[in-house]
Amino acid sequence: MATRTVDLNADLGEGFGVWQLGDDDAMLGIVTSANVACGFHAGDSATLARTCRLAAERGVRIGAQVSYRDFAGFGRRFIDVPPEELAADVMYQIGALSALAKAAGSTVSYVKPHGALYNAVVTHRDQARAVAEAVHAVDPELPLLGLAGSVLFDAAAELGLRTVAEAFADRSYRPDGQLVSRRERNAVLSDPDEIAERVISMVTAGRVAAVDGSTIPITVESVCVHGDSEGAVQIATAVRTRLLAEGVDLSPFS
Amino acid sequence: MATRTVDLNADLGEGFGVWQLGDDDAMLGIVTSANVACGFHAGDSATLARTCRLAAERGVRIGAQVSYRDFAGFGRRFIDVPPEELAADVMYQIGALSALAKAAGSTVSYVKPHGALYNAVVTHRDQARAVAEAVHAVDPELPLLGLAGSVLFDAAAELGLRTVAEAFADRSYRPDGQLVSRRERNAVLSDPDEIAERVISMVTAGRVAAVDGSTIPITVESVCVHGDSEGAVQIATAVRTRLLAEGVDLSPFS
Amino acid sequence: MATRTVDLNADLGEGFGVWQLGDDDAMLGIVTSANVACGFHAGDSATLARTCRLAAERGVRIGAQVSYRDFAGFGRRFIDVPPEELAADVMYQIGALSALAKAAGSTVSYVKPHGALYNAVVTHRDQARAVAEAVHAVDPELPLLGLAGSVLFDAAAELGLRTVAEAFADRSYRPDGQLVSRRERNAVLSDPDEIAERVISMVTAGRVAAVDGSTIPITVESVCVHGDSEGAVQIATAVRTRLLAEGVDLSPFS
Amino acid sequence: MATRTVDLNADLGEGFGVWQLGDDDAMLGIVTSANVACGFHAGDSATLARTCRLAAERGVRIGAQVSYRDFAGFGRRFIDVPPEELAADVMYQIGALSALAKAAGSTVSYVKPHGALYNAVVTHRDQARAVAEAVHAVDPELPLLGLAGSVLFDAAAELGLRTVAEAFADRSYRPDGQLVSRRERNAVLSDPDEIAERVISMVTAGRVAAVDGSTIPITVESVCVHGDSEGAVQIATAVRTRLLAEGVDLSPFS
Repeated sequence: MATRTVDLNADLGEGFGVWQLGDDDAMLGIVTSANVACGFHAGDSATLARTCRLAAERGVRIGAQVSYRDFAGFGRRFIDVPPEELAADVMYQIGALSALAKAAGSTVSYVKPHGALYNAVVTHRDQARAVAEAVHAVDPELPLLGLAGSVLFDAAAELGLRTVAEAFADRSYRPDGQLVSRRERNAVLSDPDEIAERVISMVTAGRVAAVDGSTIPITVESVCVHGDSEGAVQIATAVRTRLLAEGVDLSPFS
Repeated sequence: MATRTVDLNADLGEGFGVWQLGDDDAMLGIVTSANVACGFHAGDSATLARTCRLAAERGVRIGAQVSYRDFAGFGRRFIDVPPEELAADVMYQIGALSALAKAAGSTVSYVKPHGALYNAVVTHRDQARAVAEAVHAVDPELPLLGLAGSVLFDAAAELGLRTVAEAFADRSYRPDGQLVSRRERNAVLSDPDEIAERVISMVTAGRVAAVDGSTIPITVESVCVHGDSEGAVQIATAVRTRLLAEGVDLSPFS
Repeated sequence: MATRTVDLNADLGEGFGVWQLGDDDAMLGIVTSANVACGFHAGDSATLARTCRLAAERGVRIGAQVSYRDFAGFGRRFIDVPPEELAADVMYQIGALSALAKAAGSTVSYVKPHGALYNAVVTHRDQARAVAEAVHAVDPELPLLGLAGSVLFDAAAELGLRTVAEAFADRSYRPDGQLVSRRERNAVLSDPDEIAERVISMVTAGRVAAVDGSTIPITVESVCVHGDSEGAVQIATAVRTRLLAEGVDLSPFS
Repeated sequence: MATRTVDLNADLGEGFGVWQLGDDDAMLGIVTSANVACGFHAGDSATLARTCRLAAERGVRIGAQVSYRDFAGFGRRFIDVPPEELAADVMYQIGALSALAKAAGSTVSYVKPHGALYNAVVTHRDQARAVAEAVHAVDPELPLLGLAGSVLFDAAAELGLRTVAEAFADRSYRPDGQLVSRRERNAVLSDPDEIAERVISMVTAGRVAAVDGSTIPITVESVCVHGDSEGAVQIATAVRTRLLAEGVDLSPFS
């Protein structure tokens, strides 16, 4: 059987000033792509500069993790931003991180929406189009990392932007392929072995067990893992180890 | 006598959300270079995007007007920022505006510090070096617009950055070539004809009358005018009209 | 016929740092109650302190105009804030303004939600309850100024808070008593005489012409006027003058 | 020998949104006074509300820890704020926390400047006066917690404000009674037993060994301990245990 290749991505640079979040150093030894905050939900400039330098040193690709302007809510609260303002905010963030990536000897290789914006652009057409247009205006070669089937991917396709489908290592899926809401009990998985097993199924077979026990098809070019707790780093490590053991190459998509 | 060429610059894009400041539209018909805010002392993303588009349409060069992170104080309060943080803040701002300028079909052509940072880097070596290093790290071809004789210009020279000396149309000068402090009575001039006359002297003769009546030499590659009041726009218009009448070409330095 | 009494309210203190908005000085000569910003959508501390001093000097009551935390959007964008966070934000804002009002020799006499929060609590039960509970927790004697029929008023009633119904001088009403959305053409009226005439009808007859020509009942303890443009100040003046001419007393409700 | 009484204070509520800092729960079992952040250097409203509730439940006094407006720098960077703006910022913060404390069934019992503002008002007369005047304007009964010999204490005395002198458990002192700068090597002590021993000497004998080996007099009404790391909590515990063992009563000053 042919060797498979997949990307591993995680959110990084999500501290702010004195406040730290997650173990960026550990995660940079695990992932192949780093979704680096851009200063709107997290990330003071010095933290972002440092994260870009570390990513560059470790050969990890840098993506711009763009967000609503919302420190107090860590970008996790939907904001009804008019499309023109949202597009400008997205361009601003990509540019800001690009300068820091460039100074670190690297570059911004892709864009991924964060938190409530990620969820919004699954179905919110105006905001999805604003995000896609912003990316296109800054650099039409930049891929968008997100959810297959989202209106963001539709908007990106219309503009000729490349889209990269990601799956979540530790999240439950509904039979229709969407994520089980975090407000439901069984939305997040926690057992490293079970999670690693699911990722293998996703990546090598293109299938995953949905929350109702049925098996559904899934497209995975990148697997999202988390690093915001000790347990999360363990899970990410288990996923990486298991993928390599199964002969899957880990490599950035971009 | 040979024709002279000089640049005219002004601060633009200094609103924030609903709040407006200055008559950007009028000023874009007067100046050749626009120091556009970068979101740290003023400038929400949508305002900055709009300002970049207008500047691009009118053929006015865009510069990044970088500042301390200080909305409440409009960047006019000295902040004792450690150099590493300041450098990262400067890179972040240049990058953010660059993306908006690019989306507008233009580019960031130079960098100018704003407000209290402008004043600080006349004498504060650590902050001056941080600003110069940040500019160099993002793009070593970017010129710095500022005050001749400042430690910022020394730091820039060490790194091989181009520096562009500006003079202020409406400010009084001390015999040593420094600006009279705004806290003193006679710091700011207000008569359009007098100001235009001084600018002619600066640009064509390289001289200006200091506050004590003596005549001092001055180097001017760019003249800074203001646009934050009706009177300011009148002054800027008088300066432009008079320069053209004297046969001086107005053209961006970059 | 008996003399009627009504309150006139307007939004004040809505600048931020160098940025000004509206003619607070003129409005303080017109209204009897000032909805003063609390620093979350507008209002740096010094501006708010000054506004409180001016209101105290002119005998105008001070209300806390509480908002989502949103400078960039001037509080005009709905934010899906969890109720516990919203309640804390509302308490924080009331307290902050209370200290400034106290230092000015006055006090916060009521609370009014601003912008998108005002609109949200017409129908959003969780946010409405959060606002009412926050007001109650800080001071159960504080009245809430808002829209009759809103879920905010229901929530306030459950807690035993006093509610004060306001009407908008320059807005069109639907036959069901709700406001015509600002996104529709005829949402806002602009003729001072027509507006003053409508206010007289609201205040003295308890009726107003709806947008479809029908006449609807309306409860008015306070009339909201605007002061954010020259035209707005003229309208507010017309409303005040006309009310006094009709023998209506202008007096704060609280 | 007579029993002594002293207050133990620490900084609390210094998270922001998702970001946590320090072990507030542990510290509330150790100290008698909590310097709660007020939202300018740390502390979103919900965190502050929670901290006030916990402090109230544990019988710990609440003080307002006022700061420069500086999230990105955690209030540790000097800002050249004009006195009028600083005074308004201080009033705003005291009021905001007061509402949250009141909702928690407690009250703000004192004010302590934070970080760079704390250091500035040791010598900066204009800022010191602004802080003292702000406290006085909000409530002339509120004590100021700070450094004996500071110009803040001079300004407070002129206004008739009560001042409370604190000593730092883990900081080195110069022979003149001032703190050794954090930029010097031996500025901060780390051995719990040594620190506890020093505190006993300060509290029961009114003396402490300066960094040059000499013994200097010191006035201590409150001892400041830290809680921002595991080691810090251990030190605070050691100080508390040792004070109780020596028969010193721990009790809030206010």
